Amino acid sequence: MKNLSIVALLHGPDRPGLVANVAGWIFQNGGNILHADQHRDEEEQVFFQRVEWSHPGSGDVVQAVAATFVAMARNDLKMECRIAVSNESSRVGVLVSKIPHCLRDIAFRFRQDEMRGHIACVISNHRDVESFCASVDLPFHHIPVDALGKSDAERAQLEIMRKYGVNLIVLARYMQVLSGDFIEAARIPIINIHHSFLPAFAGGRPYHQAYARGVKIIGATAHYVTAELDQGPIIAQDVAHISHRHSVDDLVRKGRDLEEIVFAQAIRWHLEHRVLVYKNKTVVFD
Amino acid sequence: MKNLSIVALLHGPDRPGLVANVAGWIFQNGGNILHADQHRDEEEQVFFQRVEWSHPGSGDVVQAVAATFVAMARNDLKMECRIAVSNESSRVGVLVSKIPHCLRDIAFRFRQDEMRGHIACVISNHRDVESFCASVDLPFHHIPVDALGKSDAERAQLEIMRKYGVNLIVLARYMQVLSGDFIEAARIPIINIHHSFLPAFAGGRPYHQAYARGVKIIGATAHYVTAELDQGPIIAQDVAHISHRHSVDDLVRKGRDLEEIVFAQAIRWHLEHRVLVYKNKTVVFD
Amino acid sequence: MKNLSIVALLHGPDRPGLVANVAGWIFQNGGNILHADQHRDEEEQVFFQRVEWSHPGSGDVVQAVAATFVAMARNDLKMECRIAVSNESSRVGVLVSKIPHCLRDIAFRFRQDEMRGHIACVISNHRDVESFCASVDLPFHHIPVDALGKSDAERAQLEIMRKYGVNLIVLARYMQVLSGDFIEAARIPIINIHHSFLPAFAGGRPYHQAYARGVKIIGATAHYVTAELDQGPIIAQDVAHISHRHSVDDLVRKGRDLEEIVFAQAIRWHLEHRVLVYKNKTVVFD
Amino acid sequence: MKNLSIVALLHGPDRPGLVANVAGWIFQNGGNILHADQHRDEEEQVFFQRVEWSHPGSGDVVQAVAATFVAMARNDLKMECRIAVSNESSRVGVLVSKIPHCLRDIAFRFRQDEMRGHIACVISNHRDVESFCASVDLPFHHIPVDALGKSDAERAQLEIMRKYGVNLIVLARYMQVLSGDFIEAARIPIINIHHSFLPAFAGGRPYHQAYARGVKIIGATAHYVTAELDQGPIIAQDVAHISHRHSVDDLVRKGRDLEEIVFAQAIRWHLEHRVLVYKNKTVVFD
Repeated sequence: MKNLSIVALLHGPDRPGLVANVAGWIFQNGGNILHADQHRDEEEQVFFQRVEWSHPGSGDVVQAVAATFVAMARNDLKMECRIAVSNESSRVGVLVSKIPHCLRDIAFRFRQDEMRGHIACVISNHRDVESFCASVDLPFHHIPVDALGKSDAERAQLEIMRKYGVNLIVLARYMQVLSGDFIEAARIPIINIHHSFLPAFAGGRPYHQAYARGVKIIGATAHYVTAELDQGPIIAQDVAHISHRHSVDDLVRKGRDLEEIVFAQAIRWHLEHRVLVYKNKTVVFD
Repeated sequence: MKNLSIVALLHGPDRPGLVANVAGWIFQNGGNILHADQHRDEEEQVFFQRVEWSHPGSGDVVQAVAATFVAMARNDLKMECRIAVSNESSRVGVLVSKIPHCLRDIAFRFRQDEMRGHIACVISNHRDVESFCASVDLPFHHIPVDALGKSDAERAQLEIMRKYGVNLIVLARYMQVLSGDFIEAARIPIINIHHSFLPAFAGGRPYHQAYARGVKIIGATAHYVTAELDQGPIIAQDVAHISHRHSVDDLVRKGRDLEEIVFAQAIRWHLEHRVLVYKNKTVVFD
Repeated sequence: MKNLSIVALLHGPDRPGLVANVAGWIFQNGGNILHADQHRDEEEQVFFQRVEWSHPGSGDVVQAVAATFVAMARNDLKMECRIAVSNESSRVGVLVSKIPHCLRDIAFRFRQDEMRGHIACVISNHRDVESFCASVDLPFHHIPVDALGKSDAERAQLEIMRKYGVNLIVLARYMQVLSGDFIEAARIPIINIHHSFLPAFAGGRPYHQAYARGVKIIGATAHYVTAELDQGPIIAQDVAHISHRHSVDDLVRKGRDLEEIVFAQAIRWHLEHRVLVYKNKTVVFD
Repeated sequence: MKNLSIVALLHGPDRPGLVANVAGWIFQNGGNILHADQHRDEEEQVFFQRVEWSHPGSGDVVQAVAATFVAMARNDLKMECRIAVSNESSRVGVLVSKIPHCLRDIAFRFRQDEMRGHIACVISNHRDVESFCASVDLPFHHIPVDALGKSDAERAQLEIMRKYGVNLIVLARYMQVLSGDFIEAARIPIINIHHSFLPAFAGGRPYHQAYARGVKIIGATAHYVTAELDQGPIIAQDVAHISHRHSVDDLVRKGRDLEEIVFAQAIRWHLEHRVLVYKNKTVVFD
């Protein structure tokens, strides 16, 4: 049988010997480092590390090793530490409105094992994606936000997420703004996808605005959701070149393609424990 | 001897027969169409055309043909029309502060005939690029904006531009804001280059802000200068992907590379009469 | 009711007056040009044009106008001409083996009206995509090439394609080489998608070869199928940057994303009559 | 005064404890790790590491530390090891023919401190770049390869390189094929830049071939020179999208822009000791 593996994401004030301490501890505790990536933020003097190691022990043994490592990192190295063991499963909860493409795209990526874990449930304020969910065996829940009121609806959403043991929420074109209460109560990361423009536009119908302004580049940004709308730490971004020959419909279509790829990229990196958040920015160990 | 050619840039309300009228006129007046590109803005119902044709006549004859065409376009077709004949020379005036890379880049591109026309003069509020100008035989003028005051300095700049017969001003990293008076009095197009970010940042030291925000993409935008700062019609844009591994210095360096390429692209398209401006956006017939 | 429109794709030896002749004819025959794009190959002295015009007549009238235009183009202008009227439907036949992603991607794009026309039938030498086809209501036919032998299998494939009135065949990761006989007998365009590398690799398992060679860029190319394997006219290409951090699995996944986007792009352009083939190269009026 | 730093590039068969051993040794020998990046080739089971650490000692002390590290790596860890101390200077020798753009580009990048080290000398088989070299104070040597014969010319080139203490040779559009004897006798890395196409082309005038084939993407590749022409380990690659609207001249110009950027990128990475070569591929710790 294949050995289990542990991933640790660490960060904290830089000081001599950190790499040696971490690597030495892992070696002395029976592990073999598979990947290790470090980064030092020169402006902030902060040290970041992602280290992944295999361990020959059973599930219980490896969980114990992981817990001991976290304690060591916090107490001895004074580092923040998040950890994951490869026998833990990722359960993703999806919030979506009417537009199906991002949901559909990740559904197939999970199915063909491009992404670790699985989609545990899909919740929507509309019924548009219900039949798609049925066709690919995804549990679907309809929570009509407008009818229930936002705060009751959010309570119901969280209850469903908890029932399925969801540990990551993703907003696959969810057109409602989540309240600060929801974000706080959820206590798990939330990933959102939205379009981006050079220059930026405020207000509605952004592709129409971009067309009217004659922008030559459109983009998509995936980020963690924070209380400040669309201002959370950026995980992934990509762009496409456009010209006056592209109609508003072309912009929308190219935007959709970008959204799918950037959204899937961000979720994949998160599920592989490659994303470290520090002061509203990310370090992505890709 | 090679025939002279004429480029016309037209735009106006769309109506049946425009393409036929233009093409028919050119054919009946002894021309042969080399390139023609049309565009119809579906949102605005406006028709745009760039048409380039050769004519076997002498310089005087071709100038007369061009003038007649403009009159026909305005009077018969009710179109706005700009025209250029291939024996007219483009004379570019450069405004630059201390950072030399954009100036240096276009200087070599003009020299190796990547760009039509030539640099007529370089004006700076500092002396940093003076020796470079000497080494490549470009007339250099020092106008100390702070010492003279902006309005006297701008008057002096315009006088020099006029003396050299400049018909395009380019801002090769010119760190002063041009006054609305200057822009109006110049009566010739002005092209600027600046960095762009996803998301956008206000205020100084943008690369430091981008680093602090953890952006994954940086960009550069070339645009025509209007009275509203950095809000003029966009001509060209490009981007580069970055990661946490890039320091602020790396961002600055990658930004410089982008600025050079986007700035040169915009100037080249302008000098080849490929850029049509309409309502603060451009149609670029590339 | 909206007017019908006609698209003509023309090419032939350049000579004075072509644009005027075409535009004049359309105007005199009651049409209004919506888009026109010309290109002149300076090396070959060949003129290319895509012109799209609307006409107020009924279906029969517009078909007659289109037929008259073709005759005029061939006889009077000595140009090759292909024509399409907007009331004609595109029926796409898909050949696919086991890998489903390209089929699935275009199925959803047709369904959300990103592409003109529809998928008429899916034929595979395996049964892997059968249940997917059922879930999205696409007629599926299993033709076991190995069991039947290539020439009988190809005859059966062509018969099915004809039964559905297919006018474009697309190879959505079809892992069999089509015979020259099939290509000739089909008499309709065939579009293929394959991966591309810098530098190129011969032989099997290309992603493993690319990994072993340490390439920094992988790509995908969509092209028309000709008798010479993978050497037909290129319609669309795109690339992604990779590094040593990407495993072979990452390369395969990124390759899949590229294949979907490039394949869909090529099919969309073909169905919008934007692709003109000349001497094993394409002119794409995008 | 700022501490000196050491960069080590290591590779060899993977086994448990390598990261711990390296980090532990550095810590125990008075160093502080600034950056460390590891990679494990899953196909080859080879471990790669780039580790950079600062040391408070004087120049002689740090050189001794570096030498001891190399001995430890080779004897105790059984790893190949290359090392560089930050007080050692990089001296680059340039071979160039007539086309100046790559030479000019790196000359300015070295001058504005984008690249570590400096250009020690420029050798050409023509006199075209002589005056440029004079204008930026670079020693120029003319070695007429055709007149002297290749083997005498190469001997003269190597002699000059040695006189200047060159430790990296770069081919800035050098249109002669270096002999296997030269490559072997030089005993220092040689970096070349060349254009790349999808698909690849053999033979002369590649941009004309690419135009004739209607390729949609052109690229540039920088690689280390080996005895097999243009087949050495790839360091950097980039591409640009093109269309039928681009003439052969446009392709050449876009190719030049790509060549400059890719060439400079490869040289920068090499001079920062970020490139590890293994079995004709590179691991670039960017």
